[in-house]
Amino acid sequence: MISKVFKLKNAEAKPQVELPAVLTVAGSDSSGGAGIEADLKTISAFGVYGLTCITALTAQNTTGVRTFDKTSQQLIHQILEADLEDMLFGYPKTEAPLKVIKTGMLTKEAIIELIDYIPKLKDYGVKIILDPVMISTSGSKLSDDDGMKLCVEDLMSEAYLITPNFPEAEALLKLTNTSNTKIPEIKSLDDFAQFVVTLQKSLKCKNLLVKGGHFPFTNDNIPTTDLNSSSDLKIVDVLYESEDDKITFFESQYIRSTDNHGSGCTLASAISANIAKGLPLDEAIAISVDYIHRGMVSLKKKLGFGNGPLNHTAAPAISVGSALIGSDHEIQTILKESGSFYEYLINHPKIKDNWQTYVTHPFVKALAENNLPFHKFLYFLKQDYHYLVNYAQVQALAGSTAPTYQQIHAQATIIGEIVEEIERHKQKLSKSYNIDYERDMDFDIDLKPGPACVAYCDYLLKVGRNDNFLGIKIALAPCLHGYAVAGEFGAKIRKNVTGLGVVTEEQSKVYESWLNDYCSDWFTNAHIEGKKSLQSLVQTMEVNEKRIEELVDMFNEVTLLEIAFWDECLNL
Amino acid sequence: MISKVFKLKNAEAKPQVELPAVLTVAGSDSSGGAGIEADLKTISAFGVYGLTCITALTAQNTTGVRTFDKTSQQLIHQILEADLEDMLFGYPKTEAPLKVIKTGMLTKEAIIELIDYIPKLKDYGVKIILDPVMISTSGSKLSDDDGMKLCVEDLMSEAYLITPNFPEAEALLKLTNTSNTKIPEIKSLDDFAQFVVTLQKSLKCKNLLVKGGHFPFTNDNIPTTDLNSSSDLKIVDVLYESEDDKITFFESQYIRSTDNHGSGCTLASAISANIAKGLPLDEAIAISVDYIHRGMVSLKKKLGFGNGPLNHTAAPAISVGSALIGSDHEIQTILKESGSFYEYLINHPKIKDNWQTYVTHPFVKALAENNLPFHKFLYFLKQDYHYLVNYAQVQALAGSTAPTYQQIHAQATIIGEIVEEIERHKQKLSKSYNIDYERDMDFDIDLKPGPACVAYCDYLLKVGRNDNFLGIKIALAPCLHGYAVAGEFGAKIRKNVTGLGVVTEEQSKVYESWLNDYCSDWFTNAHIEGKKSLQSLVQTMEVNEKRIEELVDMFNEVTLLEIAFWDECLNL
Repeated sequence: MISKVFKLKNAEAKPQVELPAVLTVAGSDSSGGAGIEADLKTISAFGVYGLTCITALTAQNTTGVRTFDKTSQQLIHQILEADLEDMLFGYPKTEAPLKVIKTGMLTKEAIIELIDYIPKLKDYGVKIILDPVMISTSGSKLSDDDGMKLCVEDLMSEAYLITPNFPEAEALLKLTNTSNTKIPEIKSLDDFAQFVVTLQKSLKCKNLLVKGGHFPFTNDNIPTTDLNSSSDLKIVDVLYESEDDKITFFESQYIRSTDNHGSGCTLASAISANIAKGLPLDEAIAISVDYIHRGMVSLKKKLGFGNGPLNHTAAPAISVGSALIGSDHEIQTILKESGSFYEYLINHPKIKDNWQTYVTHPFVKALAENNLPFHKFLYFLKQDYHYLVNYAQVQALAGSTAPTYQQIHAQATIIGEIVEEIERHKQKLSKSYNIDYERDMDFDIDLKPGPACVAYCDYLLKVGRNDNFLGIKIALAPCLHGYAVAGEFGAKIRKNVTGLGVVTEEQSKVYESWLNDYCSDWFTNAHIEGKKSLQSLVQTMEVNEKRIEELVDMFNEVTLLEIAFWDECLNL
Repeated sequence: MISKVFKLKNAEAKPQVELPAVLTVAGSDSSGGAGIEADLKTISAFGVYGLTCITALTAQNTTGVRTFDKTSQQLIHQILEADLEDMLFGYPKTEAPLKVIKTGMLTKEAIIELIDYIPKLKDYGVKIILDPVMISTSGSKLSDDDGMKLCVEDLMSEAYLITPNFPEAEALLKLTNTSNTKIPEIKSLDDFAQFVVTLQKSLKCKNLLVKGGHFPFTNDNIPTTDLNSSSDLKIVDVLYESEDDKITFFESQYIRSTDNHGSGCTLASAISANIAKGLPLDEAIAISVDYIHRGMVSLKKKLGFGNGPLNHTAAPAISVGSALIGSDHEIQTILKESGSFYEYLINHPKIKDNWQTYVTHPFVKALAENNLPFHKFLYFLKQDYHYLVNYAQVQALAGSTAPTYQQIHAQATIIGEIVEEIERHKQKLSKSYNIDYERDMDFDIDLKPGPACVAYCDYLLKVGRNDNFLGIKIALAPCLHGYAVAGEFGAKIRKNVTGLGVVTEEQSKVYESWLNDYCSDWFTNAHIEGKKSLQSLVQTMEVNEKRIEELVDMFNEVTLLEIAFWDECLNL
């Protein structure tokens, strides 16, 4: 007998994640493309935990539904009870993992059971996202008329969002249109919007998204039935948010493919997952529509012989803004009003105060005034070493996403400069304090990255591994620019300082030299060049209102991480 | 009414993937941690398409199973028929997406239906991976005694793999132990292996994996029940492959956590997904065990109040070898026998012939002999531009994974050199042939990356985005070293060439200078330094037999891509 040993490494505990949860109450599609199968794949793809309450089992494949069996009301009751007790009601209200209940194919039994829970679900702030599965892509009627009436009257009115496709929306309007007025023909986007508002008033749900997949528009915003025309067609999904009386149009490319089995389930699940993660509704919809499109264009080989499924393993977009097309207008206005993108960022209402705290940080003030106990500075230097190695790695990640070889080259130059900075740090520590990183790492606890350093490095690496060139450069910007401004701030204070404060003469010299580094010509120059390159980057890479918001949030987040880094040293 | 438009970008069609499929025949766990829910999440996480045949619905959560309803035999029949017709029987035998049927909780009805399909499944080469769900983690009996007997007699004997945990394995042995001999106590790993062999003989399945999760060993290979001892304990899963009479031990860290709800389902699904992707069984198991561990250590906050689920969204290991611990022995033997890792690679049986074809490529021979029509060389230069930009990006990705700042620095230097090479290319083209990349890109089709260039760049980017420093450097190595050797090969031929062949005098000078570049001191030096750094890298980064195999495969793959690159130019 042959024998062999495979010894596995200990699994890495990082990155650890927290999973919000979505419960999908829907039918099972044995073919895996729709129903709870599509829901689970989608919810998981967005990093969210999926639970199920299966309302019916179907025997189906991409060519159609063959038969189905409904789940008994008693079992649905017990399933909901088991799921909700363990993932919702057992927790304090704000801490429960379960955030959203997504419904697909609902039987009367499931509707009755769900309605029973509504007061408690409301109390816990759980949102109901209801995909009214009335007609499947393959044309079969899955719903149950009695149940549908109950659903409209008692469930839809409590829903956070309902997501019918156009035929479903028409059917729902007919069902609820008590005055029997004729549904007007839709000849424009405005007509479409009006239709959505009318339906929301009938259904009384909080928000309503009507999907335009069955109803493409030309680029002149005229609805068309000529799907084979050679010109580009677009799909417009329309969201009405009743509380804000706000219409949002989601325009996307019409994809000429019949492989869209389960696209409705997938969209509602993707929206649910992103709502569970805390995204605003319009953004959750945008990133979800993009996910459907990725799933539709990323299969090399169709699956099955009917309307094939999407590729649920396609990676979602890195952010909402990156899924939207750019608009020159937005950024030109900003640059005109602010002078430069750098100025726009540091004066942004979200950032301004944090930026001021950072660049006039008490750590720098104390250092400039010789009032910083030296062991705090030493701790800073030790921590900064790790930070700089990580910073160089993330600059390399930026280089790997740079669109031109000139930008790749610029990144290589920056890395060279950072390495010189690391060498200076090392020599400073080694010559003056006999500290050697490699040698002392195991017994000097301060040489290990502390909480502030770890949090900062983790954030940069996350951005570096997931975002594009512009995003990564924005995340790296507060360090470069902040140190230049803080250096200047410190040097100005230093001018009027004469005493040695809490340090020795030698230590005072170290402080002096540290401040001089960040006021030096080469650093000031890097600061100026950095501003210029940010400016040209933001003009050449496609941005839009949402993307700019994301960049602002990133810059702000990193500014806060910089503050925390110095806070930690000061509070030793 | 406020109104807003979100315009979505066209979704990127790349990378397109082909999804093999796994059908899971199992119960539904409403809590989402086990059953088909865990199966679908796991199968999708490995980039495989999941179908279902739900044998029973359960109402359960992390604290236990409350009740269940079996699916009727008729519906199971129709589900299997719908699934198999569309994803298996409709296809020519080798092209069907469905590769594996994974079973979990089986009812008698499901067993009967499955047995019916066995001859056809065998005919199509579909593998059955059977996880005998007899006792759930929470202790409830889910199986059905009648069904179990049928299962053992007619289904297990046809299984490609059965994956019981230890209590299940004991129960199965009792069930099939007709001679009524006492099951011997397990006091060592050898006893455990013997137990697995004995059980395989009883069950008659092709391969048997007995999981040791309920049965930890000390590091001295003694089984222990003292789970709270402070010393490290290990779990040993034992695989017996009957055709090769081969035992494999999978040793992994014992994780002190009760949050292992669904770990059995998850493991069997992960193995199924990896078998569907074409991995050998032992490797499929190794990467699956690693995935379970990642899932168990990566949740910041436990879910539910009983035995919590794993984090199925944890990313699987980049490769089997990278999930295994290193062994100094293997690499030392290689280095001793081969002189250097570079020599080992280029003389490896898998690589040797390909390497020779590459470094003595007819493109280089023709060029050296002035027999290369100049338009083919121009095409090469144009294509090489794109390649080099991509090469620089991937060197940056290597830099971002480099463990030390000195290595990051080295990467920055390399990028600088590549950029100089790009500049030389550009100037050559611009001065001699009035070709400008940026200007001409839109109307000179040859300036767009061709199929060979795209395939090569895609491969490098895939490795760069997913592998570690060593892996990326290996993928980048054939270009550096091959051009040095091929340059030397060409220069040697060139010595005896006097005529102008098919080129002009000026063109001949271009060929001369191209060969000189790759025979220059700086390039020869880069070649030597590259070999040294590969050598030290392979000694400092943990490698093992499997990892070395993977590195060999990568080096070979890239060598083939290099050959294809020159082939394309030559066959213009």
